[in-house]
Amino acid sequence: MLALRVEKKRLSVKNVVKPDQPDEALVRVSLSGICNTDLEIARGYAGFNGTIGHEFVGIVEDSSDRKLVGRRVVGEINAGCGACDLCRAGDSRHCASRTVLGIVGRDGAHAEFLQLPTVNLLPVPDNIPDEHAVFTEPLAAACGILVRVNISASDRVAVIGDGKLGLLCAQVVALSGASVLLIGKHASKLRIAERRGIETARPKEATKRGREFDVVVEASGSAGGFGLALELLRPKGQLVLKSTFHGKTELDAARIVVDEISIVGSRCGRFSPALDLLKNDAIDVESLISEEYSLSNGLHAMRRAATRGILKVLLRP
Amino acid sequence: MLALRVEKKRLSVKNVVKPDQPDEALVRVSLSGICNTDLEIARGYAGFNGTIGHEFVGIVEDSSDRKLVGRRVVGEINAGCGACDLCRAGDSRHCASRTVLGIVGRDGAHAEFLQLPTVNLLPVPDNIPDEHAVFTEPLAAACGILVRVNISASDRVAVIGDGKLGLLCAQVVALSGASVLLIGKHASKLRIAERRGIETARPKEATKRGREFDVVVEASGSAGGFGLALELLRPKGQLVLKSTFHGKTELDAARIVVDEISIVGSRCGRFSPALDLLKNDAIDVESLISEEYSLSNGLHAMRRAATRGILKVLLRP
Repeated sequence: MLALRVEKKRLSVKNVVKPDQPDEALVRVSLSGICNTDLEIARGYAGFNGTIGHEFVGIVEDSSDRKLVGRRVVGEINAGCGACDLCRAGDSRHCASRTVLGIVGRDGAHAEFLQLPTVNLLPVPDNIPDEHAVFTEPLAAACGILVRVNISASDRVAVIGDGKLGLLCAQVVALSGASVLLIGKHASKLRIAERRGIETARPKEATKRGREFDVVVEASGSAGGFGLALELLRPKGQLVLKSTFHGKTELDAARIVVDEISIVGSRCGRFSPALDLLKNDAIDVESLISEEYSLSNGLHAMRRAATRGILKVLLRP
Repeated sequence: MLALRVEKKRLSVKNVVKPDQPDEALVRVSLSGICNTDLEIARGYAGFNGTIGHEFVGIVEDSSDRKLVGRRVVGEINAGCGACDLCRAGDSRHCASRTVLGIVGRDGAHAEFLQLPTVNLLPVPDNIPDEHAVFTEPLAAACGILVRVNISASDRVAVIGDGKLGLLCAQVVALSGASVLLIGKHASKLRIAERRGIETARPKEATKRGREFDVVVEASGSAGGFGLALELLRPKGQLVLKSTFHGKTELDAARIVVDEISIVGSRCGRFSPALDLLKNDAIDVESLISEEYSLSNGLHAMRRAATRGILKVLLRP
């Protein structure tokens, strides 16, 4: 089968053997989405070698749960050991010996087939088209913010970054009733949020408001976003770190202590709330799709996904 | 009157005019304590010029509240504008135009007299000696941890730093019933905690335990403590930043996102819980006193306070 692979920091589309672990479900991928993490992995982040990709929708071809066979599914990307305290408490996302689809020790979704434990798979409601269902994973990550911090309707929230993740985060937070300001540099991207009634601003305009925000979500993936966040937060405010930019960031610890700021890391979220939002058409994901390519054009697709101004690029096996 | 002052980064004990703001209480200082923040201010931190010192116990000589006159008091160090949202909600500690005793825009406690708004003063219960009451401010800061993070009896907590602040933090957290490990480099300081039944370790021993701590309190005042804290925290753990070390610290943002760590800044705390602890003799502050000098020997006292191995140095006007 075809797969988009990183091997020794070299990216290629190649023919590989179809996976056949008997204890895991087999999924025929219908559509996969390129995430910024894929681009970072292709640059060598996390030292991953194998098939990349972790956003997908597909059809179950084989599973120990016979009712699932033939069903359209999405899948939680963390597969835990099943035995440690965290796994037994139902949160394999932090299992120390977890594998992660297309990121850690497990071939990913930019391929004709993938495997995951059956327990990771969730059927997709019929009214969600594949092109929306493929956003379940990043939308779940955006929903994860609301699990990590309490946001109430009276809160003022700034989201930094008008990329795919920032646009999803701004929409999810706005559903909580809080007033949301999306901060970005691209008029065409900001317009997507504006059409959903979300206020937007350029970074310079935002800083003119002073330190008035209760919560700031850093979703720009750049170290500069961190500094901007600290300029916007009120004393005792909460900074949610959403994007895994790499390299070290400088931290003004004295500022964090004196103003009693909280910095809250947030990674993956649970899939069910995200599927509910997609089912109810509560989030505009359609506008986030920039381009679609066949998997065989994976290299070109990756270049396009890394191009300034491009949002989600989809791959069809 | 005599006062220990910083002027253009120069420290001196000099004669200055006794303060006489008619709208504030006047306190004759009985005893003041040298904090590491005093040492940093003397090095130029915060650009403060004036009388330093913010830990004190004294006798009220004048106040609009006549019942207070002649009483022995300690005083909250932040004086808010009284008019902003934060002040009206009862938390002047974060008022944007606050002054802070001996730190921001207000002469401090290493002097024969000081002034504070009457509302900042709290009478000291009779059974607390001056030598203990002078610890109210740093002990309140340690108690502030329990306001910023929930610590339960089943939690494993590490406190990094066996200085004055670390020793107070470890004792306060231990009272919550959590298991506490105090991490430091000085046998004689660690012994103070051990006598209270608190487990101790050297940094190297601590890291051998792996990432098992639910909460880590950074009270070492060194950038190295931040890195050590991240080595000790379990996924979803909480790092409390307690000390305002200066200069930038490098932050591995990806680690914080992937492991969903929270970093929580904590500065001042309320005085009443600290006075209750001192009244009930629940905290060993006596062992934290290293030396006492007269205010006229303030320069020598500051040098002693900066000497490795020395804990609290007190000044008597």
